Amino acid sequence: MAALDHRTTSTTLTVLDAQGSPLAEREVEVAQTRHAFGFGCIAFDEVRLAPGERAPLDDLWHGLFDTATLPFYWRHFEPEEGHPRTDALAAAARRLVERGVRVKGHPLLWHTLAPQWLLGRPVEEVERIARERITHDVTAFAGLVDTWDAINEVVIMPVFRAEENAVTPLAWQRGRIETIRLAFETARAANPGATLLLNDFDMSTAYECLIEGVLEAGIQVDALGLQSHMHQGWWGEEKTQRVLERFARFGLPLHFTETTLVSGDLMPPEIDDLNDYVVDSWPSTPQGEERQAAELTAHYTLLAEHPAVQSVTYWGLGDEGAWLGAPAGLVRRDGTPKPAYHALRDLVRGQWWHAPTTLRTDADGRVTVSGWRGDYEVRAGGSSASFVVGDDARPVVRLAA
Amino acid sequence: MAALDHRTTSTTLTVLDAQGSPLAEREVEVAQTRHAFGFGCIAFDEVRLAPGERAPLDDLWHGLFDTATLPFYWRHFEPEEGHPRTDALAAAARRLVERGVRVKGHPLLWHTLAPQWLLGRPVEEVERIARERITHDVTAFAGLVDTWDAINEVVIMPVFRAEENAVTPLAWQRGRIETIRLAFETARAANPGATLLLNDFDMSTAYECLIEGVLEAGIQVDALGLQSHMHQGWWGEEKTQRVLERFARFGLPLHFTETTLVSGDLMPPEIDDLNDYVVDSWPSTPQGEERQAAELTAHYTLLAEHPAVQSVTYWGLGDEGAWLGAPAGLVRRDGTPKPAYHALRDLVRGQWWHAPTTLRTDADGRVTVSGWRGDYEVRAGGSSASFVVGDDARPVVRLAA
Repeated sequence: MAALDHRTTSTTLTVLDAQGSPLAEREVEVAQTRHAFGFGCIAFDEVRLAPGERAPLDDLWHGLFDTATLPFYWRHFEPEEGHPRTDALAAAARRLVERGVRVKGHPLLWHTLAPQWLLGRPVEEVERIARERITHDVTAFAGLVDTWDAINEVVIMPVFRAEENAVTPLAWQRGRIETIRLAFETARAANPGATLLLNDFDMSTAYECLIEGVLEAGIQVDALGLQSHMHQGWWGEEKTQRVLERFARFGLPLHFTETTLVSGDLMPPEIDDLNDYVVDSWPSTPQGEERQAAELTAHYTLLAEHPAVQSVTYWGLGDEGAWLGAPAGLVRRDGTPKPAYHALRDLVRGQWWHAPTTLRTDADGRVTVSGWRGDYEVRAGGSSASFVVGDDARPVVRLAA
Repeated sequence: MAALDHRTTSTTLTVLDAQGSPLAEREVEVAQTRHAFGFGCIAFDEVRLAPGERAPLDDLWHGLFDTATLPFYWRHFEPEEGHPRTDALAAAARRLVERGVRVKGHPLLWHTLAPQWLLGRPVEEVERIARERITHDVTAFAGLVDTWDAINEVVIMPVFRAEENAVTPLAWQRGRIETIRLAFETARAANPGATLLLNDFDMSTAYECLIEGVLEAGIQVDALGLQSHMHQGWWGEEKTQRVLERFARFGLPLHFTETTLVSGDLMPPEIDDLNDYVVDSWPSTPQGEERQAAELTAHYTLLAEHPAVQSVTYWGLGDEGAWLGAPAGLVRRDGTPKPAYHALRDLVRGQWWHAPTTLRTDADGRVTVSGWRGDYEVRAGGSSASFVVGDDARPVVRLAA
């Protein structure tokens, strides 16, 4: 576990009673409630729920994840110009936040799923409307959604030709870096406290070159988003390490924003654009499920071992409705968890988790808690208080009577 | 020929006699002596010549080309630290310049063929020695070599792993853009009038992203070098047009710095690094020679048609000693020209060339010359003078008695 030492720390907590005196020499129960590391997943189902309804895999979702990505695809978010679906998204975000989930919005600017009503407008107008969109969303969701993929897949953006759209001409004319500047500076102005990501699927030198240019241009990027859809098979340890090394070099936090490993046949390696692979049926298989569980464990372990990684988001809990019809979920179409679900849960809420533990305070009401950085709770005598296990934490909590 | 209109212009020349009076109503002969466009080729043989010796394919070389690339590969140029082969290179450059050839140096900084004596030195020292090397070469060759590949293949430079070298760690630590800045700013300081190129084989979005970052960082790049070794087959019109469009977008002149088309079997498409393809024998074939001639004609025509292109350098006149042993030359091992040689010469010194023509001056000694931009000569009564056909040219020449 030495390789994970940077994920854990010890914090000395001082527990006071309702009167403010040290709760000395008392048994208290200490439990982790959330990881500092983001164990994320998309939560697109949340947007489709009627009031009071629960998402189909709700318990399984919350039993493993603490960070959600919500879909802000512009074409769907604002199907008609001037009529954004703010309320539906806000309701979804609020439901998640109320359950202690951190919410990220994906993405503010992207060529794919740009609104079709934007087609054919002059570049100046597209830029103005894009700025308005970013300002609107980031402002409207501040406090609910404070992490955003500010812009998505810029490496290919100006030369994208699979579908006509209004954002590609903007990126072609302004250039990649100026388009990134547009997205970041507009979002930053709307919510200076937001965490803004550059996100890309291109793990080649192209993305490295883009990042260098963006940093050289003085654009403040808070984290680098690395997609890692692995429908064609797990990267393996060597490639994963090399990706980590190549992108950690910029000194920015890394977010693995879109992680998938299939539990069935692999997509053939000659497919270049994953979207080009269309099959009638892509079943999950027993053998595939075992492989997926082993690879998922290895992959998450490697990512957690690298100190630059701040979060990993899995791209879809269930096979039902999965992107490309792939058996990429951790839960089968019938709602039963695959081995990968159990394997990941054994890490995230098992080996890497501080389960409820009884500790004894000293004469000064102090107790030392060692575990993965994150949010914790201390309970005694029927009341509880939360605290943080982290580097600079010297928490003091006061329990209610 | 409308597509080539931007390559040609009309210039009105005033011819004076030895006394300075207009040479009125006289027949003069006008001939082009060099293209403004660079029709280049490597001239590596020149470096190996003994004094007075001529390069093996000398006549064929000068019968087609007007621009030479000389090898400044650091490992060979300075085999022992502090003992650069300045004299041999200067002799070669001088020989070419005296025959009216423009000379380019390739390259000032590159990971491949970096000196082995540099291995293991600390990055700070590598940087200092690299700066000294650049300053030395650019200074020593000013006036002979005023065009340089300031740096070569930076897209891959920091992540290059095929051979241990001292430049990769520099690029990894400083970053691509700062390494480019180092090369450009050092070369610029040594010869402010030099034309400095960024040169790469990577035609993907990676090179686009790199260029954007470099320009955003305020580094003055005089031309973009695009290698185009086509051992795996001609790009074809669509890809060639797309490359032109993608790289012309930056508003910089384009130099096709390393052009090859083979006249034998194509290298299989699955080869990623061309250096990995090793064959005992790679013969030129009659069928391959016909294909090469057709493709070369099509390729040069497309490049000449695009206004951003300033030069095209062919990577080796003869098959003898060609890179990778490929039949990439325009001349066979036995010294006879292939169809591609004739085809290219028919363009460069034929269709695109102003052959000696008799024209008649008017009453004011004026004659209008229309043709490809470049250097010309006017001859009358046994004397001659040179002039330029170009946009702003209003040349007046005085013929000796």
